[in-house]
Amino acid sequence: MKVTLPKNLLAEQIALLERVIPSRSSNPLLTYAGLAAGPESLVLFGSNGEVDLEIRLPARVQGEGAYLVPSQPFFQLVRSLPGDEAVLSVEKELLLSSGRFTTRLSLAPVEGYPELLFPEPGGPSEAFPLQAKVSAGDLLRLLTQVRYAASNEEYRAIFRGVQLEFSEGGLRAVASDGYRLALSQLPKPQPFVKKAVVPARSADEVVRALKALGEGEVALALGPGTLGLAMRGESAEVRMAVRLMEGEFPDYEKVIPKDFPLRVRLEVDPFREALRRVSVLSDRQNHRVDLLFQEGRALLSAEGDYGKGQEEVAVAMEGTPMGLATTPATSWRPWLPWRERPSWR
Amino acid sequence: MKVTLPKNLLAEQIALLERVIPSRSSNPLLTYAGLAAGPESLVLFGSNGEVDLEIRLPARVQGEGAYLVPSQPFFQLVRSLPGDEAVLSVEKELLLSSGRFTTRLSLAPVEGYPELLFPEPGGPSEAFPLQAKVSAGDLLRLLTQVRYAASNEEYRAIFRGVQLEFSEGGLRAVASDGYRLALSQLPKPQPFVKKAVVPARSADEVVRALKALGEGEVALALGPGTLGLAMRGESAEVRMAVRLMEGEFPDYEKVIPKDFPLRVRLEVDPFREALRRVSVLSDRQNHRVDLLFQEGRALLSAEGDYGKGQEEVAVAMEGTPMGLATTPATSWRPWLPWRERPSWR
Repeated sequence: MKVTLPKNLLAEQIALLERVIPSRSSNPLLTYAGLAAGPESLVLFGSNGEVDLEIRLPARVQGEGAYLVPSQPFFQLVRSLPGDEAVLSVEKELLLSSGRFTTRLSLAPVEGYPELLFPEPGGPSEAFPLQAKVSAGDLLRLLTQVRYAASNEEYRAIFRGVQLEFSEGGLRAVASDGYRLALSQLPKPQPFVKKAVVPARSADEVVRALKALGEGEVALALGPGTLGLAMRGESAEVRMAVRLMEGEFPDYEKVIPKDFPLRVRLEVDPFREALRRVSVLSDRQNHRVDLLFQEGRALLSAEGDYGKGQEEVAVAMEGTPMGLATTPATSWRPWLPWRERPSWR
Repeated sequence: MKVTLPKNLLAEQIALLERVIPSRSSNPLLTYAGLAAGPESLVLFGSNGEVDLEIRLPARVQGEGAYLVPSQPFFQLVRSLPGDEAVLSVEKELLLSSGRFTTRLSLAPVEGYPELLFPEPGGPSEAFPLQAKVSAGDLLRLLTQVRYAASNEEYRAIFRGVQLEFSEGGLRAVASDGYRLALSQLPKPQPFVKKAVVPARSADEVVRALKALGEGEVALALGPGTLGLAMRGESAEVRMAVRLMEGEFPDYEKVIPKDFPLRVRLEVDPFREALRRVSVLSDRQNHRVDLLFQEGRALLSAEGDYGKGQEEVAVAMEGTPMGLATTPATSWRPWLPWRERPSWR
């Protein structure tokens, strides 16, 4: 097998794979990157046991085969190759050459490497019987708008994931840590009804892949315990398979208030900057910042050991003036009721 | 005391001070930043006990006084001020305002803060009786060319510094860890003969100040156990006082060979890149890379668990072809003879 492709293309596209492949693993084979010859393409693959990733790059290919190469030296070398083209020749070893530089890397056989199953971009497959299409930008927005609200605690493990809900009403993403909840909905009818909870860390890898790909359509597929993605970027085709969490979120809709006494519309950037400045002075124990909404203004103020800061931001108000305080999650009273009565305590 | 100055000027110039002032210290006063009114200038000062720093910024000033302000919230606030100008008004507290933002920061009295002594840019002073002038660029080059060779080991503490040697022959900087030695000489006669060893970490702060200042002349001054610097940049005057190490380097000149069987001239960047690539494959224990100089070429090669890499670089040679191996300092035989017989072992 001999593969020739632009060095920059290879160097750019391995970044996604490099994040997924672990530098250490209880299964040492997972520290390897997979190389395979495809039709006029080089296929790179890897897995951390939670996220499987496959990247297909256009290349001139002679022969066939699939091999495992030690990922760390391979990635390091590819990034620093001197020439415009990279040539990968596989015999007993991988001969990687570019410009004046030549190196031999030892290979491991693919036997023993876990079988990676990816969805077919064209439609449902045996491994992924459910499939929906969504634009990369929409999916990116859904995930990033809720991701921050996911929990980092071991307790109530399900909250360490982002729930995707496919239904006739659209595609919804929800995340919560039991104190706060973020929900984002894409009002586009989905071809099936299903809930799937993606571990937040795996959602981060999906977000990175979506960002790297830019515009385009994503095939979102569901198989047993697995979310699959297939997407085609300008210069690469990427497929992912993400292990799902078991179970689903408790019924969060009943804790979302139906009526609000006050609605405030404000410009995000000035408000964020003001909040950042004022919070510098907040007490280092509770990080409390007071917000007072009245007469078309938000008054932000904080007071701590070092002094007192305050700032005003213009807002559009609808409803009753009111004051409240923002404090970090740890000092909040849980507002999702099931956090108040953990059954096992 | 009331000081008004451009917010960006203040925000840029505090970066140097922010690096020097410690976030924690056995003397809590050292975690404060000093503010003082100067003639048409704001004077900021701070110290970590090893490096004292003073920055003088042009400003509109009313009244006088010197105060200590908690450095961390002060620096954070200054960086994020919304307006074009920053106004610092001191009464019982510091009132810092800019645009729509106002904050009060508590102050500490300067009584109890260590007295900081800096050289006078105009010439020798009582605290700094010896003074020489050097261009900022030359001093920066001297320090950065040798700094890497300084030791990180506790043993032979003097090697954890960079030795500056003032003499009629010029200004020289030397650093060594006992295995390797770097020497850089500015062939400009100095007005006095003296050796001074600057702790490598303090040399790093001097390097940062020189980089921030750009072109210009530096007054280098020596006082008892102290190196002083005074320099004027485009928008700020900076003065430093650096605690020197006691003692001086052993006689290193006798271990520098007088004759070399081979001299090689090569282009740095291609050689460095080649070395970087080839060393990816080097054994992870000894990091050995072999260099063979012959027939106008340097052949770089390395071999380790993952494979073998090699690359050639064109060089200009004078003398006898030879091969050698680069390995990390820890596996070198000491070539400064006093390392071979540590008297206390």
